[in-house]
Amino acid sequence: MKTKDRIIHGALTLFNQNGERNITTNHIAAHLEISPGNLYYHFRNKEEIINGIFDNYAQELKVRFKPMAKEEQSTMPSVQIMLSYLDSIFELMWNYRFFYANLPDILSRDEALKLKYVKAQAALNDNLIAIMNGFRDSGLIALKDDELKSLTKTLHIVASCWINYQTALLSDKEITENSIYQGMLQMLNVVRPIATEQGRVQILELEAHYQSRVSASN
Amino acid sequence: MKTKDRIIHGALTLFNQNGERNITTNHIAAHLEISPGNLYYHFRNKEEIINGIFDNYAQELKVRFKPMAKEEQSTMPSVQIMLSYLDSIFELMWNYRFFYANLPDILSRDEALKLKYVKAQAALNDNLIAIMNGFRDSGLIALKDDELKSLTKTLHIVASCWINYQTALLSDKEITENSIYQGMLQMLNVVRPIATEQGRVQILELEAHYQSRVSASN
Repeated sequence: MKTKDRIIHGALTLFNQNGERNITTNHIAAHLEISPGNLYYHFRNKEEIINGIFDNYAQELKVRFKPMAKEEQSTMPSVQIMLSYLDSIFELMWNYRFFYANLPDILSRDEALKLKYVKAQAALNDNLIAIMNGFRDSGLIALKDDELKSLTKTLHIVASCWINYQTALLSDKEITENSIYQGMLQMLNVVRPIATEQGRVQILELEAHYQSRVSASN
Repeated sequence: MKTKDRIIHGALTLFNQNGERNITTNHIAAHLEISPGNLYYHFRNKEEIINGIFDNYAQELKVRFKPMAKEEQSTMPSVQIMLSYLDSIFELMWNYRFFYANLPDILSRDEALKLKYVKAQAALNDNLIAIMNGFRDSGLIALKDDELKSLTKTLHIVASCWINYQTALLSDKEITENSIYQGMLQMLNVVRPIATEQGRVQILELEAHYQSRVSASN
């Protein structure tokens, strides 16, 4: 791995473990056993490292939430498609949890990053609506266009805010995989009462799947 | 008004206008035209003032989201009951917007405040479930117990996170009454697809009400 990528990965690990506020560029250099000068050769400051992490995150958002082509969708059981998207949400929330935990604060310090964030979210929103449209075409949900849009937004709010919401309510501040699995369950719970009978069966299957993850990690 | 209450009110105004991070006890004293010494006589530091604000907020949560007695509920049209709760959510989000905007950060600095928050939220949660039960008894929604609980949680997430979610997405950081009215609409949108026919009519009525507020403030 190139030094530049090692710095981005090392910083991400430390931010997730200790909170971004508690980590300086010196901590990152020490963690990677490189000199601060070497780090500064690649990144002028911590904000630039955060931008590097964000670019990876935005790239993952783009790839993981690309709507499927119609032909592709028809060859795959819809429960498996749902599972793959939910697992993607889990991966992003877990791997970038420092970002979810302190989003307003991080964005408020860097106007350019905020613009990148807004742009990435707009592209994501279009993709999410296309994905939800796919589930409607597969007969899992039966909603009008405006209701589908609104459901997509609700799911996006739950995913974006879950870590924040949980952190505020937990006396132990540490985010665990367990608490993120509970977020997946909450999203499934949002959809279940408005799913079709066929959709409901598949959602219950997915709920059992994530429930077993929660139990296993307790 | 007593000096102590004036300080709490003045601080709340300044926090909401400028963000809590940008306001010191000196700003608060200057705003109220009192000496810093006078302020310190009542509050040892900014955290104590924030605690004072929080106590008022928790008291409002308790009073505003008290479930209605059965007899009381039967004498009032349910659309009016819903409107009164939604207006309460609006008032709290608007009047304490600095708190919603930076909750994880504020709580992370004060362990005692965090405990108070967790306790207030647990009491609120019980009340919200009782309120939603009342709407089920009135025939507005038809959900099983676990679905009702989960719907209540989703609404709580949307209300708790709305300001945060909006702030991250808006290029202009300022929270306006308009953006909070849009939060009311999002909450109504969550409920609409799972409402009964009777409930749906009332929700559409409330959506029109808040939609007109949004248009009026544009």
